[in-house]
Amino acid sequence: MATDRSTLHGPDLNAVAGNGLVHRRMFLMAGTAAAASFASTALPNAATADALQVEPWMKLPGSGFVGYGQPSKYEDKVVRTWNTALGTIGTGTSRTPHHLLDGMITPNGLHFERHHSGIPDINPDTHRLLIHGLVKRPLIFTLETLARYPMESRIAFIECGGNGQLLYQKEPAQVGVQQIHGQVSCAEWTGVRLAVLLQEAGVDPKAKWILAEGADAAGMSRSIPMEKVMDDALVALYQNGEHVRPANGYPMRLLLPGYEGNMNVKWLRRIKATENPTMTKDETSKYTITLPDGKSLQFVLPQEGKSVITRPSPGLTMKEPGLYEISGLAWSGYGKINKVEVSADGGKTWAAAALQQPVLPKALTRFRMAWQWNGGPAILQSRAMDDTGYVQPTREQMIAKRGARTIFHSNAITTWRISDKGEVKHVYA
Amino acid sequence: MATDRSTLHGPDLNAVAGNGLVHRRMFLMAGTAAAASFASTALPNAATADALQVEPWMKLPGSGFVGYGQPSKYEDKVVRTWNTALGTIGTGTSRTPHHLLDGMITPNGLHFERHHSGIPDINPDTHRLLIHGLVKRPLIFTLETLARYPMESRIAFIECGGNGQLLYQKEPAQVGVQQIHGQVSCAEWTGVRLAVLLQEAGVDPKAKWILAEGADAAGMSRSIPMEKVMDDALVALYQNGEHVRPANGYPMRLLLPGYEGNMNVKWLRRIKATENPTMTKDETSKYTITLPDGKSLQFVLPQEGKSVITRPSPGLTMKEPGLYEISGLAWSGYGKINKVEVSADGGKTWAAAALQQPVLPKALTRFRMAWQWNGGPAILQSRAMDDTGYVQPTREQMIAKRGARTIFHSNAITTWRISDKGEVKHVYA
Repeated sequence: MATDRSTLHGPDLNAVAGNGLVHRRMFLMAGTAAAASFASTALPNAATADALQVEPWMKLPGSGFVGYGQPSKYEDKVVRTWNTALGTIGTGTSRTPHHLLDGMITPNGLHFERHHSGIPDINPDTHRLLIHGLVKRPLIFTLETLARYPMESRIAFIECGGNGQLLYQKEPAQVGVQQIHGQVSCAEWTGVRLAVLLQEAGVDPKAKWILAEGADAAGMSRSIPMEKVMDDALVALYQNGEHVRPANGYPMRLLLPGYEGNMNVKWLRRIKATENPTMTKDETSKYTITLPDGKSLQFVLPQEGKSVITRPSPGLTMKEPGLYEISGLAWSGYGKINKVEVSADGGKTWAAAALQQPVLPKALTRFRMAWQWNGGPAILQSRAMDDTGYVQPTREQMIAKRGARTIFHSNAITTWRISDKGEVKHVYA
Repeated sequence: MATDRSTLHGPDLNAVAGNGLVHRRMFLMAGTAAAASFASTALPNAATADALQVEPWMKLPGSGFVGYGQPSKYEDKVVRTWNTALGTIGTGTSRTPHHLLDGMITPNGLHFERHHSGIPDINPDTHRLLIHGLVKRPLIFTLETLARYPMESRIAFIECGGNGQLLYQKEPAQVGVQQIHGQVSCAEWTGVRLAVLLQEAGVDPKAKWILAEGADAAGMSRSIPMEKVMDDALVALYQNGEHVRPANGYPMRLLLPGYEGNMNVKWLRRIKATENPTMTKDETSKYTITLPDGKSLQFVLPQEGKSVITRPSPGLTMKEPGLYEISGLAWSGYGKINKVEVSADGGKTWAAAALQQPVLPKALTRFRMAWQWNGGPAILQSRAMDDTGYVQPTREQMIAKRGARTIFHSNAITTWRISDKGEVKHVYA
């Protein structure tokens, strides 16, 4: 804590961009110059433990043990929200409440879902994984035999190809970060490299693609370039330490770090090595990007660089002027986030946010920025850059390039407007 | 996948230590020389999708969405086990089932617990955190005001000071990794640096310690050196992304990376800056190390370097000879794990295991080692080293140094004996 305060005495020294973005050292100064503007309540100098109420839960023993724990009952609003297709119960999307979370890991109970025919109730004892097609030795695996193979762990985000699609709408949807960007989550996945299994099967060099098929009633199927498979594809058996959840592919799913969500095929039952892509329904009629002229881009596979401010965001009203931390998430399917910039004046000026270490490739990265809100209007934005040089586009840039006939790969800058009442609203700017 | 197989043709080239420990490249050779010994089942060359059964869950839509998800019903044995003090329901310990998990993150529902008077049912709206004692400006925080401060995230293990205590027993307890070492878990914790809050309170340089007090009925209280507090103590509000669980301190707990579990005070309500340690009951009558001569070591605070093999381990019987992955966990309260060695011959020969990246200081580190089990008896051990040069002791070394009158800070090498039937048993060796 050897902060040299001698250099920290002018507002000019602390400002890092317009409309109150300040250096993080402001937080460490809070006890001195900026004390009045911070959030604690001061007490008389001789305050003792009596300054605290003795609460009922301190007077009687608390509750006992359970085998598998749950969140506090007071957090029953920290849940996924979802939409389903008309007349179905399990075809649709659920979204992670990022405005109520912090860190980079998404707890398993809140990982987003996209199901095309509900969650299958798979018996792990009868489930099998078949590897066949252009291979010398077709192989079949039980969960038990697969669990003997070498494992690897990887913290990776998965994002639905349709996440953020509301940004293609003409008017800014009056919803928050969960509804707009809740179809991305991040977990530590552990499993077997698909390359190891394909090598054991004796994959033919002519095989440039694989088909991956799920065991759900929709038979989700996607074609994946062999190059990606050999690079970093995992057959994931564990999610944040425990067995993959049913909603996320129990007992096994494909993990393709950085690639479109539905390519990370859940309930994985079959891998077929092929010369060409199979042209399944979910890579032809859907999950293609239709351009203004009616032509469609197919096999746009990595999710591009992106970021969003999660706090403040719509629904989280700011009660009073003062020091705040702006917090958000950034990610890129191309690699590592190497910079996130934040603006409080609608993009006129920008400052580099702090990136929470460790920054991992193709994982969510938490960014943080100190902000002295003066109580006036503000326009908050964030912009991500990755280690390939990719820069997150503005909404105008994205639409200029792609048009607005598609719902996929929406990665534009999201804008929150803070009113002088502290209310946060989704706007285009 | 450009493995050069030309150099991989002799058993000598693959052996890295005695009794079958082999180089990881053996896994990549599995399709060739070693195919017969691996775990997959080969099919006829022209195998099609018909090699798989069409299971019932592929024929009908699956189940729908829920706000907060749960594990598969088939994983209902992946739970914590616990012991309680006589006549109580909430005073005791629950343990993480590490033999059934993989990766480094412990899911929140399976994080170990140690409660001294049960889990308090805290209303977050009335809970307060007081900072007082040797400070210029005593401060009081609500959860809401605290949430405005700068956050930090840190993946860290927490280990009960009494974890592994069965190793002090004269005879090897006939139990497994959960019962012996289940009081350690690892999560991504997010919160506010306590240093920032103390600085705002204007902490007196005379204050060399703090007292941290919990809001449970036991009033758990521990003294912590100010140097540690200023180095890396967090007031944690989030655990693996979501609000800290009730069993782990909801709505806020202290995180002291690497220090004895109960110092990471749960349900944190009070921090008092003091000149000297307060000598609370949980640092005098307990959580001290009683030596053979009856004297006790007090304030032995960091958990020492340690490791354990989680797979195979008791309860996980090996069905047939062949290639396996030995998998385990290593951690050190002093810093980063920089090496884990594995032996299959009771410590005669050792080989370096692969460490899963990223290796983080004071976090669980997953290690992995390839093993060709020949079906004969084997004695498996692991030994951790950290970046301070600390080497995990044998049980003999630990007891020679400390005696066996204590139950705390047991970090000796754990030994599993594999019988020629593949059964795994806890032994001393």
